[in-house]
Amino acid sequence: MNNNKISIVTIGHEILIGQIVDTNSAWLGEKLTETGMSPYSIISIADDEQQIIETLQSLSQTHDMVLMTGGLGPTKDDITVRSIAKFLDVPLVFFEEVYERIVHIFQKLNRPLSDSTKAQCFLPEGVEILHNSMGTAPGMLFRKDGFTLISMPGVPYEMKAIYLESVLEKVILPLIQKNIIQKTLLIAGKGETEIEDLLEPVISTLPSGYSVAYLPGLGQVRVRLTAVSDYKNGELSAEFEHYISLFENILGNSIFGTGDTNLEKVLGQLCVSHQLKIGTVESCTGGNVAARLASVPGASEYFTGGLVAYTNDIKKNIVGVSDHTLEIYGAVSEETVKEMVNGGLRILGSDIVISISGIAGPTGGSEEKPVGTIWLAVGNKNHTETKKLNLGKKREQNILLSAQAALNMLRLFILRYY
Amino acid sequence: MNNNKISIVTIGHEILIGQIVDTNSAWLGEKLTETGMSPYSIISIADDEQQIIETLQSLSQTHDMVLMTGGLGPTKDDITVRSIAKFLDVPLVFFEEVYERIVHIFQKLNRPLSDSTKAQCFLPEGVEILHNSMGTAPGMLFRKDGFTLISMPGVPYEMKAIYLESVLEKVILPLIQKNIIQKTLLIAGKGETEIEDLLEPVISTLPSGYSVAYLPGLGQVRVRLTAVSDYKNGELSAEFEHYISLFENILGNSIFGTGDTNLEKVLGQLCVSHQLKIGTVESCTGGNVAARLASVPGASEYFTGGLVAYTNDIKKNIVGVSDHTLEIYGAVSEETVKEMVNGGLRILGSDIVISISGIAGPTGGSEEKPVGTIWLAVGNKNHTETKKLNLGKKREQNILLSAQAALNMLRLFILRYY
Repeated sequence: MNNNKISIVTIGHEILIGQIVDTNSAWLGEKLTETGMSPYSIISIADDEQQIIETLQSLSQTHDMVLMTGGLGPTKDDITVRSIAKFLDVPLVFFEEVYERIVHIFQKLNRPLSDSTKAQCFLPEGVEILHNSMGTAPGMLFRKDGFTLISMPGVPYEMKAIYLESVLEKVILPLIQKNIIQKTLLIAGKGETEIEDLLEPVISTLPSGYSVAYLPGLGQVRVRLTAVSDYKNGELSAEFEHYISLFENILGNSIFGTGDTNLEKVLGQLCVSHQLKIGTVESCTGGNVAARLASVPGASEYFTGGLVAYTNDIKKNIVGVSDHTLEIYGAVSEETVKEMVNGGLRILGSDIVISISGIAGPTGGSEEKPVGTIWLAVGNKNHTETKKLNLGKKREQNILLSAQAALNMLRLFILRYY
Repeated sequence: MNNNKISIVTIGHEILIGQIVDTNSAWLGEKLTETGMSPYSIISIADDEQQIIETLQSLSQTHDMVLMTGGLGPTKDDITVRSIAKFLDVPLVFFEEVYERIVHIFQKLNRPLSDSTKAQCFLPEGVEILHNSMGTAPGMLFRKDGFTLISMPGVPYEMKAIYLESVLEKVILPLIQKNIIQKTLLIAGKGETEIEDLLEPVISTLPSGYSVAYLPGLGQVRVRLTAVSDYKNGELSAEFEHYISLFENILGNSIFGTGDTNLEKVLGQLCVSHQLKIGTVESCTGGNVAARLASVPGASEYFTGGLVAYTNDIKKNIVGVSDHTLEIYGAVSEETVKEMVNGGLRILGSDIVISISGIAGPTGGSEEKPVGTIWLAVGNKNHTETKKLNLGKKREQNILLSAQAALNMLRLFILRYY
């Protein structure tokens, strides 16, 4: 842990009155923690000049750095800039570079410049501009007597761009005298403990400065490898990539992606590259798998459609599950999900069909088939694979976990047979 | 606005490092604002004795009240209780009433008492216990020299229960010397501005102490009426109900519920009470409507199932939309959604079917039918109604808004014909 005392300050009446939840601070807290510095405190205050100035005065006495977000837009209640100038005891001056950039953006968008836009270009004298690639209001950096103040807009994607493109490199890494490198692997089909056990032999050999975080979600785990090295030693990407490749060898096909993606997007890319059409036949998930597939732009290229066969009548009459199967094995059975796949292949015009039938709960279970019993099947005209899940009692969670497991089963099926 | 200076303090390392987002503060901020007091600041700090004590010492000098959450569980890093005792300069003493309640709860759950449970019963001497109906750790109330400190557990549903059951009545309302009464109407099918215009004649006649808030969401608006009266005047529920009934007369069927519900739950109750079976035939929403209907426990009583007819082949071969219609009018047309309803009624075993076909985007539009053109239809064997939406360019938003509009159309159809 680094000893720098850093706090995050978010400005905005809308946070105090609970109109919006302050996710910026959580994001910045996570990013700072990744570099080995946990924030000392997170403080949300109003768009109030006096309060902003008092907060900065008080923090500048005890802190090495304050990361501030919010209050930099063109509307009149955004008084952060004026407050910072008063705190710094400097005048506001016109920043030509900021103005030229805004003019350029507005020309491209064919929008007229308003007076309030020009007002945005008056910033505290001596402040260093942090480029905002996602908007017009720039970030600002100010250093004085060992205290560093960074001010960024409150719009999350603008704040994140400024942090990642400027603040991390210019301020944080030099401050902690470290380089940092990081990669996140997305895993489906294995739980956190299983992944930990599998990776243990590699993790025990990691050099100092490396750390692994497991971030579990519904039906997936994000595994994040972070390496921090001394600033003067330069980059460590070759060594880092070596360890990532060891992780990849161990986790193999359980890794469905890296960084910020999701299973449905990955499936979309797989379907496009293999020129495959897919379809769904769902019972207990009620259209969730179809809806996730359809959420991806361009899904109509590979998702032909689906059936939500909630009643046995639909399973029989449209999907073609036999009376015999439903009577002998029941709607929640391996036989039924197999016949659902076959029915889907017959009528949906898909190369591969995924089917799901289960008891989502909270009621409807029996001793033999308790709530949480879910059958999945994936098949094409040559192969069909099935899987049984034994989940819990919570309906919403059962539906989401089943949909996630179904999408992952479809992914593995494509990897195996195509 | 009330002049009491109140801040919210949340305790927890996991908030600072961004592992969890602090939603407690947003909730408390909203509740305080409803009573006319906006919080001065929201401060998140670590589970650190020194930091908790310093924060309390500093705030107690300038504030009327601090609402604190977090750090009251049985685990050893929860050091809030000890820190409060040191701040108050009182010893920890054993609270028999707290212990007996925990013993009672554990006996009912058939769980053994651990030492750490007993440790939870040592609280700062002189603190007033706030009953926690949802968990074992009680809330605490302390008053000294005009400063009030309230400490509640960080588990959101426990914190909310303590606030609503004890803090509001015991502390907040006496402090502001007010009574407060509130009701939220949920509106679909009308925008915020339209609702404002409709309600204006009533709102202009509201007595002082009444306020209206419009809280827009995707395809719905929450309209919240709040009345605050002097504490000594007692309750004002008859007058309040009078104004609510005026709102209800004006907004009529646009109101789908009150408080915390959603369209799919309301539809479920309607279907059960009218003994109706419903089904879906979706194109651009890709299963979203079906998934929302299926999300409600007990949905299998009234939701028979659905079709996701993404391709024209499925629209023709399974749903039975005619070649002629698809060729002359196209897949996104009033004629197609009508035939989708008829096809659904034929094969889904439902009394009422809802259908949707549109261009969700971001690409795929034409001059005649731009991205965001969505057709909806609802029908039974006697009536069919259609509606065209002209939405924007954003795929995700188009899908969610179309699904919401479809569910609301189904609701209005049931109210009209059953």
